[in-house]
Amino acid sequence: MEKRDTKAEIIDVGTEMISLQGYNATGIDAVLKRAGVPKGSFYHYFGSKEEFGLQVIDNFAELYRERLDGFFDAPEVKPLDRIRNYLESGLAALSACQCSKGCLIGNLGQELADQNERFRERLDQIFAAWKERLADCLQQAQQRGELNRELNCSVIAGFILSGWEGAVLRAKVMRSPQPLHDFIDTIFATVLK
Amino acid sequence: MEKRDTKAEIIDVGTEMISLQGYNATGIDAVLKRAGVPKGSFYHYFGSKEEFGLQVIDNFAELYRERLDGFFDAPEVKPLDRIRNYLESGLAALSACQCSKGCLIGNLGQELADQNERFRERLDQIFAAWKERLADCLQQAQQRGELNRELNCSVIAGFILSGWEGAVLRAKVMRSPQPLHDFIDTIFATVLK
Repeated sequence: MEKRDTKAEIIDVGTEMISLQGYNATGIDAVLKRAGVPKGSFYHYFGSKEEFGLQVIDNFAELYRERLDGFFDAPEVKPLDRIRNYLESGLAALSACQCSKGCLIGNLGQELADQNERFRERLDQIFAAWKERLADCLQQAQQRGELNRELNCSVIAGFILSGWEGAVLRAKVMRSPQPLHDFIDTIFATVLK
Repeated sequence: MEKRDTKAEIIDVGTEMISLQGYNATGIDAVLKRAGVPKGSFYHYFGSKEEFGLQVIDNFAELYRERLDGFFDAPEVKPLDRIRNYLESGLAALSACQCSKGCLIGNLGQELADQNERFRERLDQIFAAWKERLADCLQQAQQRGELNRELNCSVIAGFILSGWEGAVLRAKVMRSPQPLHDFIDTIFATVLK
């Protein structure tokens, strides 16, 4: 493998393992073993476990941003339908893996916000970017007259993000997509009607 | 200390440490050291770290149930005001500790639902009991004509629980109570209006 490929492979395997078991419980040795990379080479690619964790987060955030582009950069779709399509696709993805893993950013937020200020700041930026994206979409819905103009788009975007993160957590604990269904049904029947 | 006091002290210290740093990162030795209990005595009180973790959860759930009793067994307060008072008190409690820790049940759900079926089932029961409590209160609001009777109380209770857990997570990551404020304002201005 080329150098870049090896690094990308370590990050991919690390993302999978951290998603399933968290950051603290994921040992570097286990990641390297599963990635089939010699034990000594980790520090060739990453300065520390923390550096590795931050790169896992950055890589996930970049892939997720591209995923969001697919739903939100879609002028042919009505703004509220973009949000619905995005949530429905999240529901389908989580259902396909028995609601395991949940949201990597939410998981790491729970685990690390109190322990590591660098992680907390990075996760905070990512949540803020997601919220911004939702708020922008809600504003477009208001401009088209498809959403009550009295709603504060930034507040509602945060409300949707909170509700979705919480529903993903509950789905993981229940091992059932029901909270995700209920969230989607309720948000469109009430706040976004 | 009496035997029961020592066990209770270990559980109290364990609750505090697990709330801050999670279950996997909390070592038995560190808990015993902080509790001032001899290292050898842990297995006198608990069969395993898992048993200890489950007792931390049970103890937290029991104290939280008493806290909920204070808000929800209050026939003199209007049902929707019981929910509002409960959420406002959570906001005050989280604000008082700079939104650290978050919700122990939510944290452990994120961390352990995929790793340990005994923990997952216990956490699922606790969330279900909280949801039930909210649903019962919403039903009382409907019976008094204070809430739209077309709403499905069980679904809305789950929606509130999801939204609150997600808002607590976001508050922890942002280190700001803003998501909690926004959740309370929005839920009462829209779904529970």
